[in-house]
Amino acid sequence: MVKISLDVMGGDFGPEVVIPGAAKALERHPDITFVLFGQRAKCEALLAKYPKLKEKSVFHDCDVAISMDEKPSQALRRGRNVSSMWRSIAAVKTGDADVAVSAGNTGALMAMAKFCLRMMADIERPAIAGIWPTLKGESIVLDIGATIGADAKQLIDFAVMGGAMARALFEIKRPTIGLLNVGVEEIKGQEEVREAGRLLRDANIDSLNYYGFVEGDDLGKGTVDVVVTEGFTGNIALKAAEGTAKQIATYLRAAMSRSLLSRIGYIFAKGAFDALREKMDPRKVNGGVFLGLNGIVIKSHGGTDAEGFAAAIEVGYDMVRNGLTQKIENDLKLYHAFEPTSVGPEAA
Amino acid sequence: MVKISLDVMGGDFGPEVVIPGAAKALERHPDITFVLFGQRAKCEALLAKYPKLKEKSVFHDCDVAISMDEKPSQALRRGRNVSSMWRSIAAVKTGDADVAVSAGNTGALMAMAKFCLRMMADIERPAIAGIWPTLKGESIVLDIGATIGADAKQLIDFAVMGGAMARALFEIKRPTIGLLNVGVEEIKGQEEVREAGRLLRDANIDSLNYYGFVEGDDLGKGTVDVVVTEGFTGNIALKAAEGTAKQIATYLRAAMSRSLLSRIGYIFAKGAFDALREKMDPRKVNGGVFLGLNGIVIKSHGGTDAEGFAAAIEVGYDMVRNGLTQKIENDLKLYHAFEPTSVGPEAA
Repeated sequence: MVKISLDVMGGDFGPEVVIPGAAKALERHPDITFVLFGQRAKCEALLAKYPKLKEKSVFHDCDVAISMDEKPSQALRRGRNVSSMWRSIAAVKTGDADVAVSAGNTGALMAMAKFCLRMMADIERPAIAGIWPTLKGESIVLDIGATIGADAKQLIDFAVMGGAMARALFEIKRPTIGLLNVGVEEIKGQEEVREAGRLLRDANIDSLNYYGFVEGDDLGKGTVDVVVTEGFTGNIALKAAEGTAKQIATYLRAAMSRSLLSRIGYIFAKGAFDALREKMDPRKVNGGVFLGLNGIVIKSHGGTDAEGFAAAIEVGYDMVRNGLTQKIENDLKLYHAFEPTSVGPEAA
Repeated sequence: MVKISLDVMGGDFGPEVVIPGAAKALERHPDITFVLFGQRAKCEALLAKYPKLKEKSVFHDCDVAISMDEKPSQALRRGRNVSSMWRSIAAVKTGDADVAVSAGNTGALMAMAKFCLRMMADIERPAIAGIWPTLKGESIVLDIGATIGADAKQLIDFAVMGGAMARALFEIKRPTIGLLNVGVEEIKGQEEVREAGRLLRDANIDSLNYYGFVEGDDLGKGTVDVVVTEGFTGNIALKAAEGTAKQIATYLRAAMSRSLLSRIGYIFAKGAFDALREKMDPRKVNGGVFLGLNGIVIKSHGGTDAEGFAAAIEVGYDMVRNGLTQKIENDLKLYHAFEPTSVGPEAA
């Protein structure tokens, strides 16, 4: 049984998306039970439409819903202890849930998660890990926006946590890890990235297969299972790739409707276009995982639909089933057994 | 008349691509004359095939060709004064050419260009500006890989130089400028980016229209004419976008050949696919412009074909015709007339 707490008020559509999304996830994984946090008046009628979900859920009425544009500091002040967002996270702390899922605003969710769950021992900064569709399948990319900048030690923490997540999500024993850089030669790039590379190569941890540097185009190729970078570059790379995918989809639509012949062609090839659309469906890879905290929190895209929210729930489900937190703790121990005495001048 | 010097030995294919590329550019712009630098034995037979080009060119025999994997320091040592790369750049310095174009290795080309042409007064670091295809047309993105990191003053230099390039290339009077960041709110992102934003807003330069922060997905949307970032993030964003485009092209090919129906559809819609292919053709936006030097140098993709190399030549042609260097100098003066007394703590 996997216990999942949901911030029912989170996201652009709140209960309208979260409740049907939860129902979908439950259909596919009947061993889930939900703890729902929301404003009862806005949820009750909707929940009644999904009797199976209602049966497998406990509902908690919350006074406050955090809005999508609220600043993290304000959200914390206004929403601590009383908001659906805070309480869904707190349920992980108390053990009432194994994982929390919210489509609410990222900054507020991260601030509350840090405040409520606290950082893991030995981890200085949290990361958000995203799932990146590749030509080979999927990779994990982190950090995609939790914090700006990272020194060598923090990049190694990201590598260890991302590796543990890859083992939990892809069920592989020794995921390959790459450091995102502007060239593959050892002399290139930011000093902190080069230092992290040297340390990872020397560490020789059983659970990680350090590949070396990777470049921006290796993301889509799926060159490695885990791509490690700091949050500024990771966030911009992710959005640049998403933007490009949308741009090409726009070109493709325009091209296919430009003449009678192309419209006829489209009808014949509709199956192919459906397959392509499914391949490029951003809902399938919805769900950023907050790493480095004492508990698992999943961030869903705010604008997703029920299918996308169900995917975020399922990422959380997989993380719990495959013991993500335990794996991270083990891997950190393995890494610290190697115990570098210094992580280089930039960490001084 | 525009005088263009070419490093005929540069790139993965050297003369095989450079000479037919030059011939193509000449067909479209008969007012070009070329100064060619290469190893005579490897060029003579090829050049004889293009009599018009031969007639409009002066050929200089060079002993040394810089290889694609040579380190910048080694290239400088081995190739100074004697290589086709160096001499094509030196021709700009002596006034024998208005612009140099090379498909040779970026690091070596930048090292030689800095050494030979020197930085412009008031500019601390060079940038490479790329042309990014967008839903609205094209934008300029810089720096895409000249240097790692940039402080607020350097970001502003990039903004001024990118703005001048936009005026030269797109022939608009007051290009919009955006700073690449992880969020559009003023409080977000790297301190140096925020500081640059404050200074650009205050500067209120006639030739620049400062838009504010933009995010990774604004690149493809074409939200602004010029996107400014430091070289690490710029390079990774560019390659992530290129990688995504290739990834989707692979999906599309696979989808269109998966069944008899889709193959029939492809035949009907072939015109549409050709239009799409042209839209996504990376050769059309080939040509990174080195900015901040006393002279214009254009870097072509090393692996491009004759059509792509011709496009890089044409970028150089446009820059000369529209007085890029003059525009940059004017804009720098305008910016310095505003003269901020400080560019913030991070520049101290």
